[in-house]
Amino acid sequence: MNASTGERVKIREVGPRDGFQNEPEVIPTEHKVRLVECLARTGLERLEVTSFVRPDVIPQLADAEEVLQRIDVPPGVSLSVLIPNERGLERALAVCERAGRSLFHEVNVFLSASEEHNRRNVGRSIAESLAGLERTVARARAAGFRCEGVISVAFGCPYEGRVPPERVFEIARALRDFGCEEIGFGDTTGMANPRQVGEFFERASQQVPGVELTAHFHNTRGQALANVVAALDAGVRSFESSFGELGGCPVPRGATGNVASEDLVSMLHEMGYETGIDLARLLACAQAVQELLGRPLGSHLLTAGPIDWTGRAD
Amino acid sequence: MNASTGERVKIREVGPRDGFQNEPEVIPTEHKVRLVECLARTGLERLEVTSFVRPDVIPQLADAEEVLQRIDVPPGVSLSVLIPNERGLERALAVCERAGRSLFHEVNVFLSASEEHNRRNVGRSIAESLAGLERTVARARAAGFRCEGVISVAFGCPYEGRVPPERVFEIARALRDFGCEEIGFGDTTGMANPRQVGEFFERASQQVPGVELTAHFHNTRGQALANVVAALDAGVRSFESSFGELGGCPVPRGATGNVASEDLVSMLHEMGYETGIDLARLLACAQAVQELLGRPLGSHLLTAGPIDWTGRAD
Repeated sequence: MNASTGERVKIREVGPRDGFQNEPEVIPTEHKVRLVECLARTGLERLEVTSFVRPDVIPQLADAEEVLQRIDVPPGVSLSVLIPNERGLERALAVCERAGRSLFHEVNVFLSASEEHNRRNVGRSIAESLAGLERTVARARAAGFRCEGVISVAFGCPYEGRVPPERVFEIARALRDFGCEEIGFGDTTGMANPRQVGEFFERASQQVPGVELTAHFHNTRGQALANVVAALDAGVRSFESSFGELGGCPVPRGATGNVASEDLVSMLHEMGYETGIDLARLLACAQAVQELLGRPLGSHLLTAGPIDWTGRAD
Repeated sequence: MNASTGERVKIREVGPRDGFQNEPEVIPTEHKVRLVECLARTGLERLEVTSFVRPDVIPQLADAEEVLQRIDVPPGVSLSVLIPNERGLERALAVCERAGRSLFHEVNVFLSASEEHNRRNVGRSIAESLAGLERTVARARAAGFRCEGVISVAFGCPYEGRVPPERVFEIARALRDFGCEEIGFGDTTGMANPRQVGEFFERASQQVPGVELTAHFHNTRGQALANVVAALDAGVRSFESSFGELGGCPVPRGATGNVASEDLVSMLHEMGYETGIDLARLLACAQAVQELLGRPLGSHLLTAGPIDWTGRAD
């Protein structure tokens, strides 16, 4: 708890990609556009809008081009798209070309820290993924985009168990050397604990210098905010989260996804950090998506509301 | 994250009192007995069984005498009862006298850190509560019981807002001077944040020396485990929690209560702390109470299950 009051923390909202992708029903494009525009007016600096994955595999995001073309967001919000491979990048570049302008600012690429998770997720070995991502990042940077490389199951893998941090750092250095300016570390299935997270990021800042380090926690076992505190203590100042606690696997009911953006922002503000985000507006976005989806979401703020220090309860 | 691996953390399970008290339906005595006995065989060291509050005010715990008389728990489990006042203590002593033996080991007394919360909760000023608790603690200790003094809304009050730590420490010192060997600090409505908690307990260990300090967090805004990490960092090694995340106000649905014991134990074990608790057995207790109550509870482990490091997922 050493940070000085008012220190800035960056948040990337990933709900429109990570959340919408995992919904059993495809969300109509008009609702996606409305929610992205609502989120973009909360003061968020970073917003992952969609992904150029194969539409036959993930029909939930088949409207990536249309969403990007239709959204109207204020300047200053850095929009990113998730890109699985060169073909996905080509689709993303093509839609910008047709529009005659860049429709986003950042390209996020990803792979897994374990061979088995990577094989099941993208059908490649880690070495094959890295070779493809090197070309993808080079082309994205040549087109003027900032790149983030995301490493899934960085704190533990359901198929391989413990993942050696050395292996994660090695992959992170490769992504950095390809040109990624930011590396995200994902606790994809909620296996990380605060002690592990603290030790990991203290080492990561030494092992992977010269790049922004971002933490992406899932609240699968209720530890997401505890892991955020450990990461803050280790110097991390960039996080990814999802409004309403969307994402992860929504079945069974209650199996939670990414840490809820509004729960994260509430805690950070209470701790004296600045995010630039208007919590009431963010909560309104979460309420809107909860209403749209028609089921209670995992976010705590959605139920409890923000903390009221005025003492006017009742 | 400075604790050495294997360091012991004490947990007091408060679900049978704090949880059952807040259920809209009265739980039949035979089920309470079964669940307390189940919990007492998880390896828990401390277990709050019931409360001697007025049966007309809290009918959910009107069977306090019968529960204490019927439960059969292994030696080594320290059983406590919550006592609001001298009349409550007299009832608790009377049932031991009728049984011809002590049916519990600890007496927990309580008051609030804010005048308004105390007035609404027990109809007294803090000074009046303290005067009564001085007599209650003296009589409990004379009868051979260890005493814990619990201070509610210690980190923020819904009616008064911020509560000065100095005031909380003052009350804590009074309780210690009455003879309490342990002081519990309750975040009764989930207003605490990790920075506040860390600073509070670093000061508390200096301001209230000579007594065991216990943290009691609610997960109202998802921050309970984050607050636990901050308290651990400040040296706290004693926590209160509730199986299934019972407690608090169960309406509206999703308004969470005490931090779930199984979520807490899972995190502590993952961090390398020892609790003496068998997580699988504890989870079985939470599953049993969830089945009994017939609604999904807030506990994350109940949905996600314990972390499996064997890599055998699928």
